[in-house]
Amino acid sequence: MAVQVSIPKGTRDFNPTEMSKRNYIFDNIKQIFKKYGYQAIETPAMENLSTLLGKYGDEGDKLLFKILNSGNYLGKLEKTEISEDKISEITNLISEKGLRYDLTVPFARYIVQHRNEISFPFKRFQIQPVWRADKPQKGRYREFFQCDVDVIGSNSLYNEFELMQIIDDVFDVLDLNITIKINNRKILAGIAEAIGETDKFAPITVAIDKIDKAGIEKVIEELKQNGLTDSAIEKLKPVLEIKRNTQESIVFLEQMLENSQVGIQGIAEIKTVFEYINKFPVKSAVELDLSLARGLNYYTGAIFEVKSNDVEIGSICGGGRYDDLTAIFGLKDISGVGISFGADRIYDVMSQLDKFPEETNISSDVLFINFGKTEEEKCIEIANHLRKNGISCEIFPQKAKMDKQFKYANNKNIPYVIVIGEDELKNDTATIKNMKAGTQSNIEQTLIVDEFKKLL
Amino acid sequence: MAVQVSIPKGTRDFNPTEMSKRNYIFDNIKQIFKKYGYQAIETPAMENLSTLLGKYGDEGDKLLFKILNSGNYLGKLEKTEISEDKISEITNLISEKGLRYDLTVPFARYIVQHRNEISFPFKRFQIQPVWRADKPQKGRYREFFQCDVDVIGSNSLYNEFELMQIIDDVFDVLDLNITIKINNRKILAGIAEAIGETDKFAPITVAIDKIDKAGIEKVIEELKQNGLTDSAIEKLKPVLEIKRNTQESIVFLEQMLENSQVGIQGIAEIKTVFEYINKFPVKSAVELDLSLARGLNYYTGAIFEVKSNDVEIGSICGGGRYDDLTAIFGLKDISGVGISFGADRIYDVMSQLDKFPEETNISSDVLFINFGKTEEEKCIEIANHLRKNGISCEIFPQKAKMDKQFKYANNKNIPYVIVIGEDELKNDTATIKNMKAGTQSNIEQTLIVDEFKKLL
Repeated sequence: MAVQVSIPKGTRDFNPTEMSKRNYIFDNIKQIFKKYGYQAIETPAMENLSTLLGKYGDEGDKLLFKILNSGNYLGKLEKTEISEDKISEITNLISEKGLRYDLTVPFARYIVQHRNEISFPFKRFQIQPVWRADKPQKGRYREFFQCDVDVIGSNSLYNEFELMQIIDDVFDVLDLNITIKINNRKILAGIAEAIGETDKFAPITVAIDKIDKAGIEKVIEELKQNGLTDSAIEKLKPVLEIKRNTQESIVFLEQMLENSQVGIQGIAEIKTVFEYINKFPVKSAVELDLSLARGLNYYTGAIFEVKSNDVEIGSICGGGRYDDLTAIFGLKDISGVGISFGADRIYDVMSQLDKFPEETNISSDVLFINFGKTEEEKCIEIANHLRKNGISCEIFPQKAKMDKQFKYANNKNIPYVIVIGEDELKNDTATIKNMKAGTQSNIEQTLIVDEFKKLL
Repeated sequence: MAVQVSIPKGTRDFNPTEMSKRNYIFDNIKQIFKKYGYQAIETPAMENLSTLLGKYGDEGDKLLFKILNSGNYLGKLEKTEISEDKISEITNLISEKGLRYDLTVPFARYIVQHRNEISFPFKRFQIQPVWRADKPQKGRYREFFQCDVDVIGSNSLYNEFELMQIIDDVFDVLDLNITIKINNRKILAGIAEAIGETDKFAPITVAIDKIDKAGIEKVIEELKQNGLTDSAIEKLKPVLEIKRNTQESIVFLEQMLENSQVGIQGIAEIKTVFEYINKFPVKSAVELDLSLARGLNYYTGAIFEVKSNDVEIGSICGGGRYDDLTAIFGLKDISGVGISFGADRIYDVMSQLDKFPEETNISSDVLFINFGKTEEEKCIEIANHLRKNGISCEIFPQKAKMDKQFKYANNKNIPYVIVIGEDELKNDTATIKNMKAGTQSNIEQTLIVDEFKKLL
């Protein structure tokens, strides 16, 4: 009897089919990043806790996976009273490393640490897992992959446009219909100013961010609780309640924010981005969405979110400009802009819409049936030729019942099976079976490579 | 002033050039694995400690990175006295997960957990980082990548041959001269039997394994300490001292092991593997090396090791057959064979021999110089064409001094720079500068795509 084995909750094994589909997404994304001159970096899974703590709020600190110091970690603990209210102090004594929580803070740390080797503007992408001790639930994991692309060290709005081109290219190649929603935090700051609540900018953005999920009523309630005056809320309502297209929104904002300097700047930035898009149209719909806020507070300019047009799911890509990310490590005035693709959600949308190409299900192109030593040798000879010509193939590793070998081909979704038995061996031929069509044909062994070049 | 930031000792950041070179190795290896019908799986970074503990010996248990339980992990600790001699007990109370130490034990766990979905023989590869709290030193890291390929559920020696073909293909495409050394643990068991020390098989293999590093004298000393009789050691010496070629070794063994059943079986296996190699020669040298033992005790049949012919370094690939790996989780009688490529060492060898192709240094193919808004628009138009034709390119994101932009191209090893200034704009031309040769030419804008198809 096999032992009952399991993996930690919220983590996943990926089987060959899942891997193939995931890599289909990652490989396409990587290829597009590279086409625009972005380069890969990787950072270690473990960071010093001093790098991570305090960067994600109190809640984030709690969700960090912390690594027990190696060796006798108890030494420092002996004089400490063990009680729950001293838990952070105790944790500090026994743990100094944690698993990364996102790719953004390690990237900021990377830039600061390597600033003298980096040639700015620095265009990097990074695709790695992150870990969060969140309560696992449907679609939320404790280990999941982030897929980030950023330009840092340039405040040109050309970068915002380029990232939108990248978004468009990625979802075009993945064959998903999407809408790119954009907004600008300076516009939100302008709105806060225009309604007379400049100092409530943070709670206003956090509240607006919830409109999609919670609805306007709930958001207004939250704003009241945060101390917004009734008159401010009255002024805010038309921003949130009325649906406008991009042009209407800009006209509306130009009036509303005419006295807000930051608001005027935000409008100018948005207009520049739309000028790019109008001159060089992308395939996806692009719209200014005033209810888009992005909860995270490090964004300072353009913000993006991508929605699937066909599947009801949260955003599948998002990001924005941050003017001072590396300031958390003391390096000031380096502006950057970046986006992150939500690989797990993209995977779900593609599965639901059946968008993965047939090839992602296929393992080898060909299986050779094994009838024993003599036949096997002929198979090795032909298999070597096929592989040299870029055709993946495998030989069933030992003689076994035919139906077992065919079942193996079936389970692995191998599209073609080559049978070289006694007769074929004698006649220098092979029987090629098309597993999907159920058809078969007999051809000369010397023609197999050419035949497969045609078939595949 | 930037804060002093760092990463945990023994871990590494990988910059774009390093990433490109590492991926050159991984991508080539993956492609070859796939050509032979192996499929990728991935397992989580964290495993339950119950999965990991006891699988790597006492020393291994200590080298596991353990994860502090989330939430109030102190609860269970309150009634426990904190003292060093209770450290494993205390660790059990506050930690139930650890980072994987290798890919083999998680793979065994995977097979047992998913045995009903897997179609055997299961040909899988896995390329992921592993973590060990080892003392960091030159070439030894606390986070490093393993690159494993295994067939499980088939005891045919065809698999051993196929893995040797894979080894040969990998180092052929990476352009490294290597020697594949093979041996068989059954031969070693036969030798232990023939010298009358059957029960000392484990210490004999561990000692033999050290011959390369420690020399024969030290190994003999260790064997004495392990209680081998003088007469046994006298019988063992000719096995270790005399260099023989494969054919001589087999003749020697057939005499020495004529009364050992396991030894005879080992010889038969080795002969079968060499029959394959003789009929289907590989490019690399293949030799039977009786001093090859592989320290790890789960190997039961063929064992492999690959040495670089040009660089003095430990083995760059190794593996073998294990008859009972999944038995650690209660699933018996599933034989497998596998090898692991040492990516870090292969990287070092290739760096030393300068074997990375030029392309691994290159980021984009082309940089467009940015002279401002009007010129930028023309660049966007042409860049879009280039990218559609598979040519990677980037536009410097803002107007800047020429030498700054050229320096950027230099630093990123971009081979071509396109200049479209006022004159070029007027004449619908572009100046293409070859950064390496230092030459430049002026061509019509409409011909740029074709020109680069020729150039790249």
